[in-house]
Amino acid sequence: MTQRNSHRRRNDFDKEHLNFIPLGGLGEIGKNMYVFEYGDEIIVVDSGLKFPDSELPGIDYIVPDISYLEANRDRILAIIITHGHEDHTGGLPYVLPRLDVPIYGTQLTLGMIKNKLQDDLPGYKPKTFEVRAGDVIKIGSFTIRFIAVAHSIPDGVALSIDTPLGRIIHTGDFKLDSTPVDGRTTDYGAFAEEGEKGVMLLCSDSTNAERKGFTPSERTIAGTLDQLFRTYRTKRIIISSFASNVHRIQQVADVSARFNRKIAFLGRSMVRNVDLARDLGYLKIDSKMIIQIEEIWKYSDNQLVIVTTGSQGEPFSGLVTMSRGENKSIDLGEHDVVFLLASVIPGNEKLVNNTINRLFSQGCEVIYEREKQTHVSGHASSEELKIIMNIVKPQYFVPVHGEYKHMVRHSQLAQEVGISPRNIFLMTNGDILTFTKNAPPKKHGHVQAGAVIVDGNAAGSIKSEVLKERREIAEDGVLVVAASIDDRGNLLAPVAIETQGVFISDDSKQVFNELYAASERAIQESQGKRANVDALKKTIKARVRDVLRKRNSSFAVVLPVISLKRSGYYDDTANYEKDFF
Amino acid sequence: MTQRNSHRRRNDFDKEHLNFIPLGGLGEIGKNMYVFEYGDEIIVVDSGLKFPDSELPGIDYIVPDISYLEANRDRILAIIITHGHEDHTGGLPYVLPRLDVPIYGTQLTLGMIKNKLQDDLPGYKPKTFEVRAGDVIKIGSFTIRFIAVAHSIPDGVALSIDTPLGRIIHTGDFKLDSTPVDGRTTDYGAFAEEGEKGVMLLCSDSTNAERKGFTPSERTIAGTLDQLFRTYRTKRIIISSFASNVHRIQQVADVSARFNRKIAFLGRSMVRNVDLARDLGYLKIDSKMIIQIEEIWKYSDNQLVIVTTGSQGEPFSGLVTMSRGENKSIDLGEHDVVFLLASVIPGNEKLVNNTINRLFSQGCEVIYEREKQTHVSGHASSEELKIIMNIVKPQYFVPVHGEYKHMVRHSQLAQEVGISPRNIFLMTNGDILTFTKNAPPKKHGHVQAGAVIVDGNAAGSIKSEVLKERREIAEDGVLVVAASIDDRGNLLAPVAIETQGVFISDDSKQVFNELYAASERAIQESQGKRANVDALKKTIKARVRDVLRKRNSSFAVVLPVISLKRSGYYDDTANYEKDFF
Repeated sequence: MTQRNSHRRRNDFDKEHLNFIPLGGLGEIGKNMYVFEYGDEIIVVDSGLKFPDSELPGIDYIVPDISYLEANRDRILAIIITHGHEDHTGGLPYVLPRLDVPIYGTQLTLGMIKNKLQDDLPGYKPKTFEVRAGDVIKIGSFTIRFIAVAHSIPDGVALSIDTPLGRIIHTGDFKLDSTPVDGRTTDYGAFAEEGEKGVMLLCSDSTNAERKGFTPSERTIAGTLDQLFRTYRTKRIIISSFASNVHRIQQVADVSARFNRKIAFLGRSMVRNVDLARDLGYLKIDSKMIIQIEEIWKYSDNQLVIVTTGSQGEPFSGLVTMSRGENKSIDLGEHDVVFLLASVIPGNEKLVNNTINRLFSQGCEVIYEREKQTHVSGHASSEELKIIMNIVKPQYFVPVHGEYKHMVRHSQLAQEVGISPRNIFLMTNGDILTFTKNAPPKKHGHVQAGAVIVDGNAAGSIKSEVLKERREIAEDGVLVVAASIDDRGNLLAPVAIETQGVFISDDSKQVFNELYAASERAIQESQGKRANVDALKKTIKARVRDVLRKRNSSFAVVLPVISLKRSGYYDDTANYEKDFF
Repeated sequence: MTQRNSHRRRNDFDKEHLNFIPLGGLGEIGKNMYVFEYGDEIIVVDSGLKFPDSELPGIDYIVPDISYLEANRDRILAIIITHGHEDHTGGLPYVLPRLDVPIYGTQLTLGMIKNKLQDDLPGYKPKTFEVRAGDVIKIGSFTIRFIAVAHSIPDGVALSIDTPLGRIIHTGDFKLDSTPVDGRTTDYGAFAEEGEKGVMLLCSDSTNAERKGFTPSERTIAGTLDQLFRTYRTKRIIISSFASNVHRIQQVADVSARFNRKIAFLGRSMVRNVDLARDLGYLKIDSKMIIQIEEIWKYSDNQLVIVTTGSQGEPFSGLVTMSRGENKSIDLGEHDVVFLLASVIPGNEKLVNNTINRLFSQGCEVIYEREKQTHVSGHASSEELKIIMNIVKPQYFVPVHGEYKHMVRHSQLAQEVGISPRNIFLMTNGDILTFTKNAPPKKHGHVQAGAVIVDGNAAGSIKSEVLKERREIAEDGVLVVAASIDDRGNLLAPVAIETQGVFISDDSKQVFNELYAASERAIQESQGKRANVDALKKTIKARVRDVLRKRNSSFAVVLPVISLKRSGYYDDTANYEKDFF
């Protein structure tokens, strides 16, 4: 290398910077997506989705707005996936057709992604690169070490991302389970090694930052299961859990073997994940123990365990159809006991509670979180989070993967272990945190970020206006006033009124007559003037609202629909201009 | 009494029966209403409301269907209210105008009811009879003893209802708090006395039947408060709690006095309940300690406590407007700490969580249930429920006031203390449980029961069809196709299309052109035939759905609106028949 080259490189260095840009996962649980950008090279960590709540009626799911990545498509080297949960992988069917970049992940993670893409993106061939915990790979200027972490799904990894400006540790989702079911503990040694080399930035999982102490080991579920299997020795046992929690399914299989029970799996995602995890060796169940759901009649109650989906009250899941008495394979009754081996994800409380009540009304016994240790979290609690900070000893800290309250609590924990408030950054999606060689990092600027809503097959960004309209009509229904006028404002046929979801009080005939009269009066008043459809709509709306208000009748959304017959019109339905909508 | 009379009475006795009919509160938390009927005399216990969940968009509240009571209006002697919570009193503004019967209740309960009626039923003068715990009154054939119980509102009572066929104990809402804030413990002695006399039926509060052990005393909150006031000695303290939980407000006042802080109350229901409870002597706060919210600027942060509503994330409450930075009295900041002294009522999780996140984003510290003992329940846990059963020693048992799962658990507790499963009745609203002199009680028949939905000012029963329509349009919006035709089916003006809450994918112009074309084709095809509006609507609907399906575009509800111009029509807008809707 010549002096001149060396000089040039140093100069470039000064101008170089490293940007951390979260596109999803901050201020929310869900749709995780984190961008690391060094010079003109970009790597993306995770590509998740989020399920909508009742604020977004009718929406299937939400993914991050990736406008920034689309605009910089050519600079993206890779998407690296930390583990196989949908809040880290579920955005790929939306993202991949738009970016078409290679995906890096561990074996089980990629297996789950491929299953998903087969459904949602048939025909698309993803470029995947399989890695293992312990691997170190180079992608452009980024040197990435994959570090094993324990979580509620096998084969999860944290990332140590070395860049010319410093090292970043991104924990992914993790806990410090000392007795994980698969024996694969979080790799403290690797975190410590990176810590010794020096870590500039730690991005760590905030989900359980508000929980004191330690998250119990997944293995504690085995104790609960053992006790429950003993208590309900004579009953048929039905277990509902997350289809992706392979560790928990393993424990159910182990206890079933000890109690000489066969297992039948029910529910498409359950069957598929079990097949995948068994094929890849993450789940070890003797084939002789597994029976098909169609064969259960051959066995007595005390020889059976049925493992199914529906722990979140998902409408078409195995457990929910059972609770409704609508499952074609299983009729529940007094000889059954149902274990819900999962906690309720916030937002699903109502669905789960309704399911539990319905299960009881089928006559079976139901065991759920309220009473027993039927679930442990997959995320580190506050003591674990502090341990990781002390091992990694980062210069700077950004809490990620959490609602605002979790991020605040996590930053308080960071201060407890001695990280200066100046070195902690509370970010929001789209914020740019820039590291340079000779100055402290700072938040400067913001890229476009937010939610893209995927509604049915119409993937694309839905306008918030549309959602606002939906909420309005959801509250009080819609009342349509339709009228046809000519271009001097003359009414061509009687006004027609239709409603959807509108509750008009008892004397509705009278109210409707007033509504017709008010609408037609509004039209008559504008007669003779040049027709102004927008103004007329406004007037009709106001008059109809007046009637409803006067009658204390309804807060329905009033939707006037006017068709305008222009002069010279009407011979050919195909050839006129559609300028009135 | 002559032999003959005695004989006659015995004969009547044999024919006499006592019915217990729950009209609300079974299989749900909310709208409690229980009917006791002896011969032709009826007394009603409680008259509550329930707040709707997202399944009932736009609904204000729900009350029990009282058709049975309306049909038997003349036989009702009284409504007896056990305590002042809305799930026991909130139905009165709906019920009283329809039944107009006297109300019995304790002083604070009646005070709260009167406040409510002033708002919701101005001008109505309820006939009220004030009772005190310990009182025994006779209403027709019923002899009613009022028994003090501890609960999360003062002045609550259980009822011992003596009838010619046997004694009934109805617990109301209660816990066995041994150190209640007002010193008024649940009156074990009275329960024991009734138990010794012999209790035929116990109806007991199932809310916490799934909780092990004992519910902590309300007084434990004082310890939490003391610790929090010490920790946040320099900050302004904002406390959100239930406006009706006078005990908790008392404890806040007491700790505020010890720490030399003034209290400002904020929020209409909070101010009103505090005024009422102080007037009646249930709340003891030195007037010098209370300041108006407009005066808080005169005091430094460490001299102030602000007590407000909004612990359930209610949209227009004090706390929620503060969290949005929209409260005209208070701007939150780093010098503030907010205590949420309430648990989240199931169904409100999302609202409360959003409020907490917004409070954090205002920069203040927030203390909430997840982390501290900031709430204790007002309902007895399983050990307390078993104690009451052992004290009362009922022959028969009906779990009331709970979801199905709570009632199942409660009946399991009853079996544990030795009540035979044959003597336990799991009932649903509307069931009739009949007691006669010479045979065991049995469920026989059912009266009309269910929910009456109160929507805005239009109190009345809303058709489930309307709610179904609302849910449909809430999911995917509504697409209106409006057309005017003459009675030979000719289109009089171009078809007009309007949408509300509809998400059409990117090439919407193209989609709309297809929608216009499909609608007009449907109309053209019917030309020449005698116009059949219903058939035409059906055809338009099908064609429009075809286009949307083909374009993978939307699942919107399609609402065709046709106005029909009859021959000879159109001169006078006022005089035509409205037969087409």
